[in-house]
Amino acid sequence: MARIAYFGPEGTFTEQAARSLTGAGDELVPFETIQLALAAVRKGETEGACVPVENSVEGVVPATLDGLAEQEPLIAFAEALLPVHFSVLTRPGTTEIRTIASHPHALAQVRLWVEANLPGAKPVATSSTAAAAVAVQAGEFDAAVTAPVAVQHYPLEVRATEVADVRDARTRFLLVRRPHGPLPEPTGADRTSIVAAAANRTGALAELLTELAGRGINLTRLDARPARTYGEYRFFIDFEGHVAEPRIGDVLAALRRRCRDVRFLGSHPRADGVRATIEPSAGNADFVDAADWVAAVRRGEQA
Amino acid sequence: MARIAYFGPEGTFTEQAARSLTGAGDELVPFETIQLALAAVRKGETEGACVPVENSVEGVVPATLDGLAEQEPLIAFAEALLPVHFSVLTRPGTTEIRTIASHPHALAQVRLWVEANLPGAKPVATSSTAAAAVAVQAGEFDAAVTAPVAVQHYPLEVRATEVADVRDARTRFLLVRRPHGPLPEPTGADRTSIVAAAANRTGALAELLTELAGRGINLTRLDARPARTYGEYRFFIDFEGHVAEPRIGDVLAALRRRCRDVRFLGSHPRADGVRATIEPSAGNADFVDAADWVAAVRRGEQA
Repeated sequence: MARIAYFGPEGTFTEQAARSLTGAGDELVPFETIQLALAAVRKGETEGACVPVENSVEGVVPATLDGLAEQEPLIAFAEALLPVHFSVLTRPGTTEIRTIASHPHALAQVRLWVEANLPGAKPVATSSTAAAAVAVQAGEFDAAVTAPVAVQHYPLEVRATEVADVRDARTRFLLVRRPHGPLPEPTGADRTSIVAAAANRTGALAELLTELAGRGINLTRLDARPARTYGEYRFFIDFEGHVAEPRIGDVLAALRRRCRDVRFLGSHPRADGVRATIEPSAGNADFVDAADWVAAVRRGEQA
Repeated sequence: MARIAYFGPEGTFTEQAARSLTGAGDELVPFETIQLALAAVRKGETEGACVPVENSVEGVVPATLDGLAEQEPLIAFAEALLPVHFSVLTRPGTTEIRTIASHPHALAQVRLWVEANLPGAKPVATSSTAAAAVAVQAGEFDAAVTAPVAVQHYPLEVRATEVADVRDARTRFLLVRRPHGPLPEPTGADRTSIVAAAANRTGALAELLTELAGRGINLTRLDARPARTYGEYRFFIDFEGHVAEPRIGDVLAALRRRCRDVRFLGSHPRADGVRATIEPSAGNADFVDAADWVAAVRRGEQA
C-alpha cells in the first residue's frame, strides 16, 4: 500500500492513468498542479507521482518536462498510454444542450463532433475536464466533455462516449519516484529518457544525436524546450533500450562526457510493448565482445 | 492597404503582434482559431495571417506548426517578439476582487502574483484573455488577466500592469503569406524555417542535423511534433541564415536530397536582431570559392 500523488482533480485522464499504474490497495492523492504533484514525491509525502508527459495531438506537457529537469532528480519507473476520447455528460433528464463546458484543450479536440452533433451548443471554458462536470452538476452548464472515468465521481448521465475529432490520439503518462533503486528490470521493450542542457554552439545537438546513431540506438522522442531564459534550450531525448544494457550504458557515458549537465530520467518498459530495433553490430553482445577484446589486448593476450 | 487575418479575438497578444507587423492602413481581421486564420490566407480572403509560434515558457504552439506543415504551403515573411506580461483589468469602481478570469495558460503564468497580491481571489477559466475582459465587462467576474492591448477595446480600468511570474518570458509570432515571391531581403540576421517528415529509422534526425552542423549552420529551434498517427514524427527546424545565401541554399539542397518530404517555411529577419554566427570555412565566400574551383576543374583549367 503506497500513497501516489497525481495531477488532479478526481475524474481526469491522469486519475485514470494512475489507476492503471498502481495497485488496488494504493491510495491516490490528487494535486492541483503538476508542480505540486512532483513536489509531494520530492518531499516524501507520497511514494510516487503520476503526471502526463506527451499527447499525440497537443505535443509535450511543458510543466512535466520542466518539472523533471529542475530541482531534485526524479525517475520514471513506469508509463501508461491512454486513448484520448471523451465522454459527454449531462444531468439526468436534460433535453436541450445549449452550453458545453470543458478545458479549452478538450474543447479543441471535440470541436467538429460538437458542430455535427450538438449544433448551436456554445463551448464554455473551464479549468479542467472534471471542473466542467462539477459545473454541470451545479446546473451552470448543460453538458461537460470529460475523461471516461469522470462519470464514476459525479451523478451525471453519459450522453456520448468515445468522442474525439482525431482518431488514435493518445496521451502518455509517467509514474515517477525518487531515485532510491532498484530500477525496473529490462524487458527488451524499454524506453530510456534523459535531459541535456544545450551548449549554445553550432552542431552541439547533432553531436549528441550522432553518439546515439553511431551505436544504432533509435530515438523515440526529442524535444528542445526553452529554458527560463529566451534563446537557451534543454533537449529531452527518449530512446529505445534500458540503462542496464551494455549498449545503453555505453552511450550514456558518452553523453555524460560530452555534456556534464545531463540527467537520467528513467528506464522502464514501454506501454506499447514495441521491442527495441537492434542494428547490425550494435547489439549488447557486440559491445561486450568489443570490451573483452580491448581488455585482452591490454593484457597482451590478443592483437 | 492589405487585409491581414489574425488569431483573435480583438484585444489579445496576437492582435498586438499583428499591429507591430503591419502598416497603419492595413485592415486586421480576427479569426476564432489559428486554423481559420491560416485558411483565410490560403483561400485568398486575406493577404497574410499573424499567428503565435513559440513561447519561452509554454513552448511551441502546436496548432500553428501543424497548420504550416499540412495543406497548401504558406511562408513566414516576418516575425515579432512580444514580452509576455499581463494587465489586470476591472470595472471602474471595483473595490473587492473575489474572482479573476483568464485563459488557463495566462492564469498559470500569474498564479504566484495572484497569491501574493489578491489572496483569496478565485481563478476562473475563460476561452481567451479577451473573453475574460468581456466577462468582467458583463459583471460575471471581478477581474480579468489580459494582454496590455485589451484595455483599448473594453471600458475597463487597469489595476496592474507588467504582471508575470516568470521575468523575460516572450512569445514569437509569424506573419505568413502564400508563396508568391519575392522573399524578404537577407539582412545578415535572418532565420530560415523548414519542416521535414521523419523517416522512422535510426539516425535519420542525426543525419539531417549533421548536414547543418557540417556547414557551420547554427540551429535556433528544433521540435519533433507527433504527426496525426502515434509514433510518427515531423521535425520543425529553425536555423540562422537566409535561403538567398549560398551556404543556406547548399544545405537546403542536401536536406531535400536526403528527405523528399521537406517544406520551406520561410527566410526572414529575426525580431531579436541576432546576427548569424559564421564558422571558419563556412562563410558564403567559401561556398562560392569551392563551387568556382569545381567548375574550373571541370573545364580542365585547375587541379
